[in-house]
Amino acid sequence: MTNFSSNHNLATESFLISRDQKEALNGQKAFVVWLTGLSGAGKSTIARNLEVALFKAGIRTLILDGDNTRMSINRDLDFSIAGRQENIRRVAEMAKLLNDAGVVVITAFISPFEVDRIQARTIIGEDCFIEVFVDAPLDVCMERDTKGLYQKAIKGELKDFTGISSPYEAPGNPKLTVQTKDQKPEDSVMQIVAWMKSNYYI
Amino acid sequence: MTNFSSNHNLATESFLISRDQKEALNGQKAFVVWLTGLSGAGKSTIARNLEVALFKAGIRTLILDGDNTRMSINRDLDFSIAGRQENIRRVAEMAKLLNDAGVVVITAFISPFEVDRIQARTIIGEDCFIEVFVDAPLDVCMERDTKGLYQKAIKGELKDFTGISSPYEAPGNPKLTVQTKDQKPEDSVMQIVAWMKSNYYI
Repeated sequence: MTNFSSNHNLATESFLISRDQKEALNGQKAFVVWLTGLSGAGKSTIARNLEVALFKAGIRTLILDGDNTRMSINRDLDFSIAGRQENIRRVAEMAKLLNDAGVVVITAFISPFEVDRIQARTIIGEDCFIEVFVDAPLDVCMERDTKGLYQKAIKGELKDFTGISSPYEAPGNPKLTVQTKDQKPEDSVMQIVAWMKSNYYI
Repeated sequence: MTNFSSNHNLATESFLISRDQKEALNGQKAFVVWLTGLSGAGKSTIARNLEVALFKAGIRTLILDGDNTRMSINRDLDFSIAGRQENIRRVAEMAKLLNDAGVVVITAFISPFEVDRIQARTIIGEDCFIEVFVDAPLDVCMERDTKGLYQKAIKGELKDFTGISSPYEAPGNPKLTVQTKDQKPEDSVMQIVAWMKSNYYI
């Protein structure tokens, strides 16, 4: 007796309205801006302000970050390395679905491991995956310590915390890098928007 | 030492562009058409043709069904009762995120248990949850047996198969019911669209 646990019985019927048609209805391309960097580097702030800039240009977007995934769709996952890897995998799959609806996605996750970002790129598709390295030195991020997490990590109250007790693997070949040590968030946003324009994403 | 496995450390920063603004940009309300019914009742066919009807009216949609969730975001789940419940929970959360992006969602899952559909309604929000009972008698569905699954279930090759070895709990109070024994899919779609119009969803 076969267990009904394989995906073998799923028929793949195609949908009648294509992603291209949905993009055309929205008058935009769909893609993912994948922000990666240390906690405190500025990912969330950039994501929020990038969304404003795109919205003003009439572009449909959704931000995916810890706030709207960790307590909802991914609430079954913990913050172990395995849990964080599965978190990133599902975020990539969600981003892909949103792209299929013709929506631009901005993600803001530390996503410290190259292997996970490569998986995300594979799921989303090379052309639609704009990896942006939000780069700030660890000491600057620790000084900002926006959420007080570095203090907790140093005291040993948080396990596997990126930069303290778990590595951050900087992207080897990001589409672009924004340096947030001295650059204001609005300037990082302008840099990303300019890159998108010159590469015909918007 | 606290394990970094609670969600306690997540700050909830609000986004700068609201769902209302996104709906306004799309010129539509966002909501979920939740199709529930036996395998073979016609959910997928109705979903696909409903999407066409809405697209022609300029409405942005995405279908969520087994095809685009089971092999991707939910590929870690099996078809046990627990796996299917978690599948439905995550589908509801995804639908909510798509609504947050201003997109209408059509779901096509058997979703046999009232408790799971209530959870979905809670996640999505009562006003945005249009439960549609796609109703066809079991013998009609078995005769159609679109995917050959009933034959397998009868032979005992599939465990916990709805209608055969697992119950289907019909909705107690669906927003509407489409009878697909004699009604053609295009007529079911027209019925749903007419309901949406008279209830000011579209």
